[in-house]
Amino acid sequence: MNKFSIGVDLGGTNLRIAAVDDQGTLIEKVTLGTKVQRGRDQVLADMCDAIQHLSDKYRDSAPLVGIGIGVPGIIDMQTGLVRESPNLPDWVDYPARANIEQRLKTVVILENDANVAALGEKWLGAAKDYADVAMLTLGTGVGGGLVMGGNIWRGANGMAGEFGHTTVEPNGHLCGCGNLGCLEQYASATAMVRLASEAIASNSKSKLALAASSDPEFSAKSLYNLAIQGDEDARGIFRFVGRCLGIVLSAMVNSLNLPIYVIGGGASSAWEAFAPAMYAEMRKRSLVYAATAPPDPNASHEGASAHVKSGPGHKTIVTRALLGSDAGLYGAARLPMLAEVKR
Amino acid sequence: MNKFSIGVDLGGTNLRIAAVDDQGTLIEKVTLGTKVQRGRDQVLADMCDAIQHLSDKYRDSAPLVGIGIGVPGIIDMQTGLVRESPNLPDWVDYPARANIEQRLKTVVILENDANVAALGEKWLGAAKDYADVAMLTLGTGVGGGLVMGGNIWRGANGMAGEFGHTTVEPNGHLCGCGNLGCLEQYASATAMVRLASEAIASNSKSKLALAASSDPEFSAKSLYNLAIQGDEDARGIFRFVGRCLGIVLSAMVNSLNLPIYVIGGGASSAWEAFAPAMYAEMRKRSLVYAATAPPDPNASHEGASAHVKSGPGHKTIVTRALLGSDAGLYGAARLPMLAEVKR
Repeated sequence: MNKFSIGVDLGGTNLRIAAVDDQGTLIEKVTLGTKVQRGRDQVLADMCDAIQHLSDKYRDSAPLVGIGIGVPGIIDMQTGLVRESPNLPDWVDYPARANIEQRLKTVVILENDANVAALGEKWLGAAKDYADVAMLTLGTGVGGGLVMGGNIWRGANGMAGEFGHTTVEPNGHLCGCGNLGCLEQYASATAMVRLASEAIASNSKSKLALAASSDPEFSAKSLYNLAIQGDEDARGIFRFVGRCLGIVLSAMVNSLNLPIYVIGGGASSAWEAFAPAMYAEMRKRSLVYAATAPPDPNASHEGASAHVKSGPGHKTIVTRALLGSDAGLYGAARLPMLAEVKR
Repeated sequence: MNKFSIGVDLGGTNLRIAAVDDQGTLIEKVTLGTKVQRGRDQVLADMCDAIQHLSDKYRDSAPLVGIGIGVPGIIDMQTGLVRESPNLPDWVDYPARANIEQRLKTVVILENDANVAALGEKWLGAAKDYADVAMLTLGTGVGGGLVMGGNIWRGANGMAGEFGHTTVEPNGHLCGCGNLGCLEQYASATAMVRLASEAIASNSKSKLALAASSDPEFSAKSLYNLAIQGDEDARGIFRFVGRCLGIVLSAMVNSLNLPIYVIGGGASSAWEAFAPAMYAEMRKRSLVYAATAPPDPNASHEGASAHVKSGPGHKTIVTRALLGSDAGLYGAARLPMLAEVKR
């Protein structure tokens, strides 16, 4: 390899650290549990030990470009403070960057986890051929990241990309952010389970109700399994999820006219169940999408259609993420490489 | 003057042509009626005569940088075709740029009118000190323009900035774009008059109903006059307009985290009537705005508040446009100057 960097995906459950070369080849990946309950110092110590291990192991083979860390939460890019993090409750105005740099005796780059996932998909995934991409991550919440001109668009305060908090229903479900009717309340894995329990409350004798009551770990994945088995209640929920995604993607397409929008996160596994309704909604609601969409309205991957309409201009691609849970890890490893280009 | 360019604001009613120097000083402005009913050739002939006149008159004093033209409608930037224009009905797939260049024997730059208005406010108006700005233009419709890094963000197909077609009410009023419940259906001058007639239909004995029936030219301006006289129906309509603007601005702030958002267009004259509800909505709905807003929630110009909270990070400014109907003219004149920098 020519040179390499170390990327970290600091999740609320898993802490993953990888050495990645500048061609995007994974050299070694370490997966640890994030010991949130043992406090942030322990999490930092585990992370820094693994970084140090990979750094020592490979630095004789090639130069280490740097270290990038994706953190779930709001990060002040200038000071390196983690302002708050939903999955790391004791990380409030926490000088994470300074503490990590002190332990490692080197410079690190911290970045929001949804932003690094977008950067990962742009570097090696679904948006590889594009300089501009928006990404939605359907997980516990709905994260968002925006890459413009090949770099993360952070905005004036490093808070850009919060597409998950776009209003879908002005008088809808209360969101943790304080708003009513955010996309996150209709398209996250959490929301899918809530929508299922709302459907069960209105019909307690349905197949959905029976499935949920017999499964103590009923999840968005269980709901998806019902949908692909043809259960109409479950299918209806995913049509509604698709409609909500379509409303927000329509606004994004109309506002930004990017060439590609990527949807990832665990709940994007239900793609086949929600994508048709999402595409239909976008064709109805977005004048820009209607003018630029690939022709096949019912393809589950519109972007992958081989029969792209000829004529002037780019097609607007809305497609699944390709890197799965590794998007954030690759994106984090990419951060020091981009920073090096700018230096 | 050092050098100058010629900007054109081609509206459905007025055709305005100005010579502007590179410091933004207006040298001479020509205002003509747009003779839409006499056909596009006549409109082009009138425009080119005025451009030629200004060009001949000043080109001995300073070099002419170029000619920029703001056109209402969708423009293919590569081919210079006007795809469609709501106010110029016979401009459909019309090779406007080629025809103008043939008449003038020189290169011209065509650009969407909402984009040039945003560029004008960025160059000389409310967003003068900022590289990144989004603008909403409340007129017959709701136009939008986005400037990022000092340049118009056109998107992959030149269709970016259509903030007026963000969904506010998923099952709301049908919009000309095909969507239901677009911002344009609640915050344009046209929408304000429709909202008034809906209020009148539900209470035909109100002061609003009397005022409208006695005024054959009842307009958004008449509605605003009623609101400032204290009429509760009129005030309620503007609170609703402000709420709808707040919903869409919240999504814009959450997505882009720009330092400044500018609201212009004729109906922005009703600022005092809708702005308080707009700001209140943004504080409730946007986590990014709530974290970055200037402190005074009820100031009619939050951005102009002198008491900006100290602490890290930029404040998010949402404010009125400053250049009025000249924003597009100045922005159009700016286009060839920016193109010159890139050459």
